[in-house]
Amino acid sequence: MKPFKKVAIIGTGLIGGSLALDLRKFGLAKEVVGVSRHAKNLAWAKRIRAIDRGSLDLNIAKDADLLIFATPVNSIMDLAPKLVKIVNKECIVTDVGSTKELVVKSLERLFPKYIGSHPLAGSEKRGVRYAHKDLFKDSLCILTPTRKSDRRALKLVDGIWKKAGAKTAFLTPQLHDEILAAVSHLPHIAAFSLIASVPDNFLKFASGGLKDTTRIAGSDSELWAQIFLSNRKNLLKDISVLEKNIAGIKSAIKNTDRQRLSQILEKAKNKRCMIH
Amino acid sequence: MKPFKKVAIIGTGLIGGSLALDLRKFGLAKEVVGVSRHAKNLAWAKRIRAIDRGSLDLNIAKDADLLIFATPVNSIMDLAPKLVKIVNKECIVTDVGSTKELVVKSLERLFPKYIGSHPLAGSEKRGVRYAHKDLFKDSLCILTPTRKSDRRALKLVDGIWKKAGAKTAFLTPQLHDEILAAVSHLPHIAAFSLIASVPDNFLKFASGGLKDTTRIAGSDSELWAQIFLSNRKNLLKDISVLEKNIAGIKSAIKNTDRQRLSQILEKAKNKRCMIH
Repeated sequence: MKPFKKVAIIGTGLIGGSLALDLRKFGLAKEVVGVSRHAKNLAWAKRIRAIDRGSLDLNIAKDADLLIFATPVNSIMDLAPKLVKIVNKECIVTDVGSTKELVVKSLERLFPKYIGSHPLAGSEKRGVRYAHKDLFKDSLCILTPTRKSDRRALKLVDGIWKKAGAKTAFLTPQLHDEILAAVSHLPHIAAFSLIASVPDNFLKFASGGLKDTTRIAGSDSELWAQIFLSNRKNLLKDISVLEKNIAGIKSAIKNTDRQRLSQILEKAKNKRCMIH
Repeated sequence: MKPFKKVAIIGTGLIGGSLALDLRKFGLAKEVVGVSRHAKNLAWAKRIRAIDRGSLDLNIAKDADLLIFATPVNSIMDLAPKLVKIVNKECIVTDVGSTKELVVKSLERLFPKYIGSHPLAGSEKRGVRYAHKDLFKDSLCILTPTRKSDRRALKLVDGIWKKAGAKTAFLTPQLHDEILAAVSHLPHIAAFSLIASVPDNFLKFASGGLKDTTRIAGSDSELWAQIFLSNRKNLLKDISVLEKNIAGIKSAIKNTDRQRLSQILEKAKNKRCMIH
């Protein structure tokens, strides 16, 4: 894979910073520039050698041949119309947004060489301070090309994620959002709701079960509010399913129906065992 | 601490087996005998030197000066009236049951030197094959003495858990069950319900979030059906709180109320950060 001449990363956080480190590690970029709202982030990104130069000004992306949006979904939507005036039409563009239907619809209209990405990596930690090489190693990255997508751009974006160590899968933006609602967004709803249900003065008795079950409730609240709202329809449907399943267990407990209760739990357990 | 002459462990599983290993490691027992429903478990327990002798017959516990019930709650209740005829009145007795109100009420009537214990250790794995030394190291063990409890028995049982590396806390059986409903049993309800809500064909897209959030849904279904029913009243109350919290998030998403949604998530996140 020929290295890009200039890669511009919009949002040098955990994902943007880690991807920048990988681009350099694997010789995929001659120059990496970064944009952030905070000078401190840029200084850190420079210090760990994720980027060569950083700026608060989007114009630093001028002449980039690879543009990566690595901000939360709402910012991607806000910044894209500005960046379309800065980069040229040949620039390969991708993003790492957590939901894809709205973003892809908007960005593929603006950038002819755009391909949506969603690396299923990261953690409840946020910020370039947690960035590290190999964040994407052995992870899955979902690409969401459409019928309009440029084939060469798809091959290049796919190649970048594979170089970074990820397996890639192609899904439509719609199916991506439907799947992510169930496997990522709903677990966050469950975790936030669960920890909210534990009285403060009981927290000191938390052991492994509660800790694991609510780890992702330590995630950024603004970011997740955005994600939930950007996948509103799928998520509302899934929350209703979760509510129905909780009600089923509740009813079996209420009726002291041990056989029914065991059946429900056994079925759930077997499904859990299907995850590697 | 003077070693016990003969310790009888009823239920040589993950907890019973691990405690047996610790009793030997710290020289707290001259002889350890085990009872199980399955000869295979006893053979394994003997092989890893958790017990000296094992039997399917409770009479092996005769002349024990320490009796430990390490079976699920229902079996403890079933076996206790049989064991009261086998051991003598001076025998120190404890159990490791996950709920305490019913067990303590029943066992302290039968055994004058009984103290309830609940080590907050273990995992979704079950069985003596997972037993190991140091399972209780740096864990918390809740003891549930009552006004009727023998002070010397309390001191001895407390000493055993401390030797095994656990910190101990004393709670009434009622408060224990109320706390455990919130910090352990409710998370299991959430995990079982959550995994049941994910379509089978989406499971291959599971990343860290779903895995952690549902790890405890891999737990034994019969065991957990028992635990839920033995803490029915507290749990029904807590499930209602969880349902209310989910409904709150759902409503904010439905109304696209980003500010309200952020507030709810931020409050939950802050609570999560209170857990060490």
